[in-house]
Amino acid sequence: MPATPVVVTISQPDLAHAGVPVADRLRVHPFDHPVVDAMNLGITRGDGIFETVGIHRGRVQGVEEHLARFARSAAMLELPEPDLEAFRAAVDLGVSHLGDVEDAYCKYVYTRGIESRSFEPTGYAFIDVNPDWTRERTEGIAAVTLTRGYPLDIAQRAPWLLQGAKTLSYAVNRAVLREAARRDAEDVIFTTTDGYVLEGPTSTLLLRFGDEFVTPTPEHGVLVGTAQLGAFEYLASHGHRTTYRDVRVEELAEADQLWLTNSQRLAAPLRRLDGREFPVDRTFTAGLNTFLRVRS
Amino acid sequence: MPATPVVVTISQPDLAHAGVPVADRLRVHPFDHPVVDAMNLGITRGDGIFETVGIHRGRVQGVEEHLARFARSAAMLELPEPDLEAFRAAVDLGVSHLGDVEDAYCKYVYTRGIESRSFEPTGYAFIDVNPDWTRERTEGIAAVTLTRGYPLDIAQRAPWLLQGAKTLSYAVNRAVLREAARRDAEDVIFTTTDGYVLEGPTSTLLLRFGDEFVTPTPEHGVLVGTAQLGAFEYLASHGHRTTYRDVRVEELAEADQLWLTNSQRLAAPLRRLDGREFPVDRTFTAGLNTFLRVRS
Repeated sequence: MPATPVVVTISQPDLAHAGVPVADRLRVHPFDHPVVDAMNLGITRGDGIFETVGIHRGRVQGVEEHLARFARSAAMLELPEPDLEAFRAAVDLGVSHLGDVEDAYCKYVYTRGIESRSFEPTGYAFIDVNPDWTRERTEGIAAVTLTRGYPLDIAQRAPWLLQGAKTLSYAVNRAVLREAARRDAEDVIFTTTDGYVLEGPTSTLLLRFGDEFVTPTPEHGVLVGTAQLGAFEYLASHGHRTTYRDVRVEELAEADQLWLTNSQRLAAPLRRLDGREFPVDRTFTAGLNTFLRVRS
Repeated sequence: MPATPVVVTISQPDLAHAGVPVADRLRVHPFDHPVVDAMNLGITRGDGIFETVGIHRGRVQGVEEHLARFARSAAMLELPEPDLEAFRAAVDLGVSHLGDVEDAYCKYVYTRGIESRSFEPTGYAFIDVNPDWTRERTEGIAAVTLTRGYPLDIAQRAPWLLQGAKTLSYAVNRAVLREAARRDAEDVIFTTTDGYVLEGPTSTLLLRFGDEFVTPTPEHGVLVGTAQLGAFEYLASHGHRTTYRDVRVEELAEADQLWLTNSQRLAAPLRRLDGREFPVDRTFTAGLNTFLRVRS
């Protein structure tokens, strides 16, 4: 019997809840039971944040990295500090209800409240079986570069554009995948107007140059990748050099290998980028993905 | 007794609904009864569109302009064509349930479906009493210019950035209001990286130079303003020249008067922009707003 997705809602700690233990503030719902108000700012304005975590045999991967990024995103949006213990407990409760599955994922969401009514934040977690990413992880994916429309230093110059925060306003991140499909590809690497490489719409870029592995500098409006942090840990422990630095667009063609990493699909090697073929090292990638899947 | 907000959900015309009249596909809910699934793409990705319409004594203003823009936004996001008759009927049904109020508004929303489950779109309308905008319409508002981070021609060069579509991904449009508040202002005019003026986060810019009224060219990633269309109609009927053209940032200081227009707040004169004081013509603005409020 296939596992059924689960939603866990979290009531927020306000005056009414003072002293109520976390466990009593969580509620489990069937996945298709509506839990969001029509005027929740998460939907009417995309005004909130999220994280997606991978779960292997009931163990959540990179728990702390995700919660830390969640808190950073909240701060960038000037949301009230999220109750990380409550989100941690919501994920665990959802996992226990999903049952015994090999690979699952959880998306947790935190929004500013109800438009024109209340600025008390709302939050919930959704837990489901992970889709099968075997093809993407082994054969690799085809991607294209598309401009994000910004110069490299935009996060410093204009923090109100929220580059580097994992917000619910992801319509552009979806639109670029449709543009990629038109170009016979399935993923995207964003570039800047001044010729630098950023990240994918839902992933971090990892480039290999000989024995050195490079990821674009997070300070420049690129999300800190939790799977990428795991990848750097794996690579360093295997004696490889790992470097954060600005990467020029023309360097993509010079890389020996490329990957897009995230918590759900893990490391997907690029077999083609903008029509250029790249070699896919299946053995190396499989080792990396095994590490990413079983790490705690 | 204050009117209570109303939510009207719309079931979509799929095979199960073939031949079902629009009226039978609408359902009225209390405003605080959740109607959105946890994994609705409207919330998890801001992947959808919306419109906000003003309602004066039960009559919806600019109905056709809003529905036309809604359809254009849907096309830009490659959403299935929205059933405009169903949305029109949902708004009317909500208005009838709200009861006899002078000024109301309705926000209607259309999303791509449920993430990882269904791409059948979801839609609903929310109807409530309008907040009191008397101060903003008469005394005027203070605004600041903030960069949108893009060059003027970005909509042509990179349509996947969805400039000019009214999407649910409005986190940036909210963040700039917080930045404005830090600068002792309450609204924003977006500028481009190459020195042009765009629009407000939820409004269209109207500049007066003598007898000529100017709005930045909609083709350049600026939303076609429905209240601004009404304003141009009013101005032309009073013998004023109305012009769409690109506007340089330095022209803001040269304007005789400035307004930000939208369907809910209508025309709000700018009394201050980036610290510079502007005259507010209360009589002229009142005439314009009377027209905008009573037009059909």
